[in-house]
Amino acid sequence: MKNGTTHLFVPGPTNIPEAVRRAMNVSMQDMRAPDFPELVLPLFADLKRIFKTDTGTVFIFPGSGTGAWEAAISNTLNRGDRVLMSRFGQFSHLWVDMAQRLGLDVECIDVEWGEGVPVEEYQRRLSDDKGHKIKAVFVTHNETATGVTSDVAGVRAALDSTGHDALLFVDGVSSIGSIDFRMDAWGVDLAITGSQKGLMLPAGLGILAASEKALEAHKQSRMERCYFSFEDMKAPSATGYFPYTPPTQLLHGLRASLDLIFAEGLDNVIARHHRLAEGVRRGVHAWGLRLCAKEEKWWSDTVSAIVVPENIDARHVIANGYARYRTSFGAGLSKVAGRVFRIGHLGDLNEVMCLAALASAEMSLRDAGSRIEAGSGVAAAQEWYRSEIARNEQMLRDRAA
Amino acid sequence: MKNGTTHLFVPGPTNIPEAVRRAMNVSMQDMRAPDFPELVLPLFADLKRIFKTDTGTVFIFPGSGTGAWEAAISNTLNRGDRVLMSRFGQFSHLWVDMAQRLGLDVECIDVEWGEGVPVEEYQRRLSDDKGHKIKAVFVTHNETATGVTSDVAGVRAALDSTGHDALLFVDGVSSIGSIDFRMDAWGVDLAITGSQKGLMLPAGLGILAASEKALEAHKQSRMERCYFSFEDMKAPSATGYFPYTPPTQLLHGLRASLDLIFAEGLDNVIARHHRLAEGVRRGVHAWGLRLCAKEEKWWSDTVSAIVVPENIDARHVIANGYARYRTSFGAGLSKVAGRVFRIGHLGDLNEVMCLAALASAEMSLRDAGSRIEAGSGVAAAQEWYRSEIARNEQMLRDRAA
Amino acid sequence: MKNGTTHLFVPGPTNIPEAVRRAMNVSMQDMRAPDFPELVLPLFADLKRIFKTDTGTVFIFPGSGTGAWEAAISNTLNRGDRVLMSRFGQFSHLWVDMAQRLGLDVECIDVEWGEGVPVEEYQRRLSDDKGHKIKAVFVTHNETATGVTSDVAGVRAALDSTGHDALLFVDGVSSIGSIDFRMDAWGVDLAITGSQKGLMLPAGLGILAASEKALEAHKQSRMERCYFSFEDMKAPSATGYFPYTPPTQLLHGLRASLDLIFAEGLDNVIARHHRLAEGVRRGVHAWGLRLCAKEEKWWSDTVSAIVVPENIDARHVIANGYARYRTSFGAGLSKVAGRVFRIGHLGDLNEVMCLAALASAEMSLRDAGSRIEAGSGVAAAQEWYRSEIARNEQMLRDRAA
Amino acid sequence: MKNGTTHLFVPGPTNIPEAVRRAMNVSMQDMRAPDFPELVLPLFADLKRIFKTDTGTVFIFPGSGTGAWEAAISNTLNRGDRVLMSRFGQFSHLWVDMAQRLGLDVECIDVEWGEGVPVEEYQRRLSDDKGHKIKAVFVTHNETATGVTSDVAGVRAALDSTGHDALLFVDGVSSIGSIDFRMDAWGVDLAITGSQKGLMLPAGLGILAASEKALEAHKQSRMERCYFSFEDMKAPSATGYFPYTPPTQLLHGLRASLDLIFAEGLDNVIARHHRLAEGVRRGVHAWGLRLCAKEEKWWSDTVSAIVVPENIDARHVIANGYARYRTSFGAGLSKVAGRVFRIGHLGDLNEVMCLAALASAEMSLRDAGSRIEAGSGVAAAQEWYRSEIARNEQMLRDRAA
Repeated sequence: MKNGTTHLFVPGPTNIPEAVRRAMNVSMQDMRAPDFPELVLPLFADLKRIFKTDTGTVFIFPGSGTGAWEAAISNTLNRGDRVLMSRFGQFSHLWVDMAQRLGLDVECIDVEWGEGVPVEEYQRRLSDDKGHKIKAVFVTHNETATGVTSDVAGVRAALDSTGHDALLFVDGVSSIGSIDFRMDAWGVDLAITGSQKGLMLPAGLGILAASEKALEAHKQSRMERCYFSFEDMKAPSATGYFPYTPPTQLLHGLRASLDLIFAEGLDNVIARHHRLAEGVRRGVHAWGLRLCAKEEKWWSDTVSAIVVPENIDARHVIANGYARYRTSFGAGLSKVAGRVFRIGHLGDLNEVMCLAALASAEMSLRDAGSRIEAGSGVAAAQEWYRSEIARNEQMLRDRAA
Repeated sequence: MKNGTTHLFVPGPTNIPEAVRRAMNVSMQDMRAPDFPELVLPLFADLKRIFKTDTGTVFIFPGSGTGAWEAAISNTLNRGDRVLMSRFGQFSHLWVDMAQRLGLDVECIDVEWGEGVPVEEYQRRLSDDKGHKIKAVFVTHNETATGVTSDVAGVRAALDSTGHDALLFVDGVSSIGSIDFRMDAWGVDLAITGSQKGLMLPAGLGILAASEKALEAHKQSRMERCYFSFEDMKAPSATGYFPYTPPTQLLHGLRASLDLIFAEGLDNVIARHHRLAEGVRRGVHAWGLRLCAKEEKWWSDTVSAIVVPENIDARHVIANGYARYRTSFGAGLSKVAGRVFRIGHLGDLNEVMCLAALASAEMSLRDAGSRIEAGSGVAAAQEWYRSEIARNEQMLRDRAA
Repeated sequence: MKNGTTHLFVPGPTNIPEAVRRAMNVSMQDMRAPDFPELVLPLFADLKRIFKTDTGTVFIFPGSGTGAWEAAISNTLNRGDRVLMSRFGQFSHLWVDMAQRLGLDVECIDVEWGEGVPVEEYQRRLSDDKGHKIKAVFVTHNETATGVTSDVAGVRAALDSTGHDALLFVDGVSSIGSIDFRMDAWGVDLAITGSQKGLMLPAGLGILAASEKALEAHKQSRMERCYFSFEDMKAPSATGYFPYTPPTQLLHGLRASLDLIFAEGLDNVIARHHRLAEGVRRGVHAWGLRLCAKEEKWWSDTVSAIVVPENIDARHVIANGYARYRTSFGAGLSKVAGRVFRIGHLGDLNEVMCLAALASAEMSLRDAGSRIEAGSGVAAAQEWYRSEIARNEQMLRDRAA
Repeated sequence: MKNGTTHLFVPGPTNIPEAVRRAMNVSMQDMRAPDFPELVLPLFADLKRIFKTDTGTVFIFPGSGTGAWEAAISNTLNRGDRVLMSRFGQFSHLWVDMAQRLGLDVECIDVEWGEGVPVEEYQRRLSDDKGHKIKAVFVTHNETATGVTSDVAGVRAALDSTGHDALLFVDGVSSIGSIDFRMDAWGVDLAITGSQKGLMLPAGLGILAASEKALEAHKQSRMERCYFSFEDMKAPSATGYFPYTPPTQLLHGLRASLDLIFAEGLDNVIARHHRLAEGVRRGVHAWGLRLCAKEEKWWSDTVSAIVVPENIDARHVIANGYARYRTSFGAGLSKVAGRVFRIGHLGDLNEVMCLAALASAEMSLRDAGSRIEAGSGVAAAQEWYRSEIARNEQMLRDRAA
């Protein structure tokens, strides 16, 4: 039976706010009309605020985050270029795979799943690379498969301290707009995101920001490319016109989504993600379970990958959630299949929705044979949310006084 | 901050299913077009199934349930007619008020709020009314203000056993489509509902079914009426055309809503309402609180009015829920203002949504000073839902075997 | 086959602007929430601008224009009161019928269909009514059935010149918001409209403005009423809360609709209606046909009722339009059935849409046997629209210079 | 001023049917849920019917038609491969450009704009290519820039008669689903379309069908590719799961769109496009103007490119249409800029919409200084539509008899 809301807690696509859904419900329009740039140009300007960049150039590709990964590589590197990458989850794995398939010479550091980018090892290798053969360093800012957030600033520091001039690539698909990200401050050269995460839209846009240094590198890049080429895709941010028909309704949705983010304040959005995530984590710990992310410094504010007890199959938890409780949890992928289930907590969410996720997970876990205590995770999260909301209210009162 | 879903737990308007919202998003159309009856006529036929009547005639008034109350009275009675009513909550109170303002001679029995229609007292009065001065007996099937469901069949039995021929009026606004209601079996003469409750639509339609006996009485009725007159409003169910422009988008929504109800099965819908309601009640009792409805026989499956502890103001609970947790609870009205808050659990709902309501209520109560245990209500409801879902699955397996 | 847009040219319901449709696509909300008045109160204030009244009080009834007719009568008059009305089309006829059914003593002047309110006869009768037995004078501002706009200011002058204190009732359902209407300037006491005409919404709201004099009369009115009573319905404009669940999505739609009207400017909206209507009329005259409205002073800017040639049945024209050309024209009602078809040209319309209506009507007429010249009406309207648009552009240039 | 409908007559994106818009208005869902394939798999099966292929394999790429062009090339050819192409409009030009940028050795035949694929020249070159150095032959089935439909069957015949085994690539972006196209019958190896044309969706999907021979060629293809690779994108049609988050709302829209097409019948859809297009052409000829497409055999049923009189700038026509008459016409691109304007007539359209386009074009042309006669094009199209509709009705009557 399909009554009521489906409770969507996969780490993307995320719940779409009502205002965004309304904004996307448009009739088609001529993308070459004289007033079309009035829609398009401010989107590019506003996306720069999301990336926290003044000097970067934003590209919007009809496609997905994966497409934006490809655009970043094929526009700034050359076949055979050596790049430094690390692999510690399904999405960092797929990016390595892409780099290899596109002909890069990938120096890949395998790290245990549950850990993040090995900053010290990066530092060591960069230091050893006296000839600057490494053309680019890749960071998966938030590994969606394991709920691990890595230290981009640390990688920037490693580059700087070793005087290395490699480009810094960051996959921010499940972080940008939800977790602190600072393109300019951290000297990121290629920052990638998609529409279906923190931007609270359906999938369909791959979004990328390139630094001035990346655009310099672009001039030397000879990889074949067409659909994803910067050459063609520079136009929209300058003129407001796309080289091929853009998904107009997503552009309208993006307008509404950016308006919501700025109305709340980007830093408030980020703080809210932390507050909501922390409630979920307190729930998990109250159950006596642990996160896949091994250390607190890696805990992700957009997705929690939860390790189920030894005797439990996480697939059953997920299946129960879906079939019995209309709840979509994220599956454990690849190496952690059956060992973890994931609660996505990014985008358009509030406290009570997170409590619903925990309540549903508790039932799904117990149905799968776990002996966690009913209501225990909910109670722990409730107390955290109550205290945080009270603290915020007090802060506002103090500020007003 | 307005992130995520608003959790709507007032006892109407209720949550609108996605399919119904989509169905209502129509462009306007000519309500005198040759194919307009293809939309309209099946609605009348299908509403009869909702009322469980074969012989009744359905009327759809652009308006509200209140309008349908007025239509019922002004089309079948005459000024000065004596009617037997009872008053035990805000909505039964308002119906009495309307009957008086429309010029009826109301014999009103006041009952303590928390109780239902006094069937035995009705029986006594009907028995005493040898001259059959009482022209109609009124029953508020589900008193939305106190969460009390009354015994319509009992009132019918009282009429039958006393050989009384008064018309039987039933306000089923917050019961029909959600709680067992049987127009023909119970000999109801005028049954009233609205669009914004079990039918899962926005407000805007007052819906009424009249028995053959009611239509006979109509012939003798001389009350002034026009907008709400049966004379004009018989046409749509016969011809498919309305005497004035109908709210077409609601008719399309009603089509989708009826389709959903019949796909699930009306009796399954009713059973689901009971299952969900029982979870909420178990949560309430786990908190150590009690319902406004004094006895189990009166517990409503569409709304629970919860009495807060002595030292607590229910208005604070509701205000906390709305301001802090994006949750709309129903207020205590009139006599019970400040003493109760209400959780509406009707329409398009599922288990996890009810758990969210309980989780939110727990925080709101604790914020208001109550010492109920965090998570306790959620846990009690979880266990009920888990067992019920397991029981249902077993039943389906047994049936398949 | 049902491809493409249905061309809707009935005089209501009218085409809904995209922005209004989007605005109505909302989830339900608690109509007793603390912030609900933020939606409601500005609607009442802004509707006063639509009625052009400073001192009037606006009422919004869930229902229809017909309901607002009833509200106007039952709240300000008493059974047996003499009222002066005139009848020259289906809608003025229905209002007379309602007045009679509600118990008024109707002095009805029958006028040939195609003419408007007989101002001089009104003047004569008012002058004769030395004892001021006439309590109210009724004007159908725009008779939708015949496309006739009457002279409200003239009726006010008749009242003033005879020193008569009768209330002035105006049915502005198909005029207000589209044709010049001035409640205060014309001393209108009860002005009535609905949501599905110039306000570009679905049917579902009956809207009424009452003068201070009308509210005084209300105190003496003893007609039974409840659903439509001013007593209950004063609350929303004062507090923002309705006595029963309002059709929230229509309120959101009304917000969007009023925003559109004010963005264009109410007087510009009215001027646009005139410009579009004049194009349609030029088309009709180019065909060699005539309007039902007998004199130019009565030509309506919201609907043109077109008299078909003697040998043609207007019903065939309408049937052809609907079945072959996906176009909904208005039918001739009652006395003019078969003799006229109507093109509604009010609400969210532009020049090319009106040309589409004419093009479709030309085919439908020719299919029905008429020998009007193909393209002739379109051509006449085109030239009018071109010159008007050029004139407007010149005016804007002059203003800018 | 922005009242009423925008009249959209660009050759894509096309008007979206109401049912499709409703279907796209969905909340997000888990693309890895067990029931997700129930949505996905039938789409692939049904798209085969659109391509008219039994043996082909369909790929759906989040992207655009341009992306599908790239997918076709990069999955089946190798860098340096010789391909035979022709160029006679902006879109055939862009495909040539892409082929060159992706590293193919393009043998490009330039043909005058207004003509189509030079079948005889193709035949000659294939015949000369004894060593079968040409690996693929490209056909732009419908050149959207000039309104020219080319002879795909003729090219197939040229390949067959010369015994040449080159792959046959067809750009059917603005033909498939609207103009007769037969993948299997014509031996097409790679057929490409997009969502925003005959499929009546927003842009966002690049759709491609590959023959068995193409899939064989794929095995030998060594071009770098990742986002657009067949390897990754075979999964969805087999399993119902995408390798990256798909634009779910477009998949729901595609479901609705395919349902509409099959309900009407694909061949009826194609016949309707012909009927509507022919009306537009008759209008153009009645004006005394000519099409860019030089011969009748090349006239496109999805878009008419109209050559304006010598003394007129087509850009003014388009600008007038947009600014004054809310009508979007297609611009003349590149070589024909200023010389032609285009009326797109594909997708969700009907007769009266086409008349609106002609009426609007007449005014825009006259405003730009053209001396065409007002109403003349409309009249010619009206008579064609009337006769065609009468003919169809007669046919249905005959069939029923």
